[in-house]
Amino acid sequence: MRVLIPFRPVNPKTRLSEVMSREERERFAFCMLLDVLRALENFDCDVRIISTHPMSLEGYEVEVDSRELDEAINSRIEGETAVIMPDIPLINEKVLERFFGTEGDVVIAPGRRGGTNMILIRKDVFRVSYHYCSYVKHSKRAKDLKLRLSTFDSFFASVDVDRPEDLLEIMIHGEGKISYDYLKSIGFKVEFEREPKLVRV
Amino acid sequence: MRVLIPFRPVNPKTRLSEVMSREERERFAFCMLLDVLRALENFDCDVRIISTHPMSLEGYEVEVDSRELDEAINSRIEGETAVIMPDIPLINEKVLERFFGTEGDVVIAPGRRGGTNMILIRKDVFRVSYHYCSYVKHSKRAKDLKLRLSTFDSFFASVDVDRPEDLLEIMIHGEGKISYDYLKSIGFKVEFEREPKLVRV
Repeated sequence: MRVLIPFRPVNPKTRLSEVMSREERERFAFCMLLDVLRALENFDCDVRIISTHPMSLEGYEVEVDSRELDEAINSRIEGETAVIMPDIPLINEKVLERFFGTEGDVVIAPGRRGGTNMILIRKDVFRVSYHYCSYVKHSKRAKDLKLRLSTFDSFFASVDVDRPEDLLEIMIHGEGKISYDYLKSIGFKVEFEREPKLVRV
Repeated sequence: MRVLIPFRPVNPKTRLSEVMSREERERFAFCMLLDVLRALENFDCDVRIISTHPMSLEGYEVEVDSRELDEAINSRIEGETAVIMPDIPLINEKVLERFFGTEGDVVIAPGRRGGTNMILIRKDVFRVSYHYCSYVKHSKRAKDLKLRLSTFDSFFASVDVDRPEDLLEIMIHGEGKISYDYLKSIGFKVEFEREPKLVRV
């Protein structure tokens, strides 16, 4: 199986700008990518990082592609192909085992607000379309193509980190993760006295 | 197994006040409860609704208890006991099968922001404490009591409906649910043109 991981190493996660500098966002995005790669470590699959800019990462194949996300991904769907977002650091081997083992021509792990955080495509006539509620668009496409769609039910896969409030989830559930350690190292912690609140000290 | 479902039929879900009237919130909370009960329908368990106010629901045992949530629940933990929140209408039989089948002395299905949306207690020395990041408090308690804790990984169980943004998840993933039909009937729909947005017409 082919696994595509799209990645933006330069000025990523701009919605985190209010709580992190650009350099921190770049480091943090890289930590999240490492967590995702670690979850994939023990699977026998062809992992390709599709990067918007040149970068190197020992042991991994990086393909630079500056086109739009959909084009970059769709041009690489061939045979059984999974697309995994690089900002879901809470996934682990157990989650992926269950995901890869889920039946269906197209299997989607949804994120909040209609996102598609992981997708497993077993009929390579399928094409992705990521922007604006991709979950609904992908469901519709599968239906139009008469493909069996499964929704993969995972909390850990549903937590993609885009906004400051998402960092809270990493601080609560991410112990042992590279991205958790990084957030801690730059001063993030959770205050538990009332409604849990993310602060930076 | 005993299943406790705490419920507030009177003026519930006040954080939805900006988008729903009190009467609508009461009806909607009831619809969500019905979805949760429907998911439980085919399991052989002793379901008890623990209500803050008198109410009746055909076919179910309702126990009125006006004490604080923690007290009302803790006084009823006996043998294998599950506590399921009444505001997670996206759960279904498959989710619960996986949940009830998860190993551990204490099994927690987390919600966002550190919530405990479902908890399965197999050693009845354990006591719950719901307010302010209960997931972390429950983890710590399990550790202190030397009980094995499992985190149950489910997106559907993680969506508890408290805020307007949570309604979006019901509108995207809730087709076939009583609460989805209710939201639709009072005018909610999702606009997909850009970032998916909940509107009421």
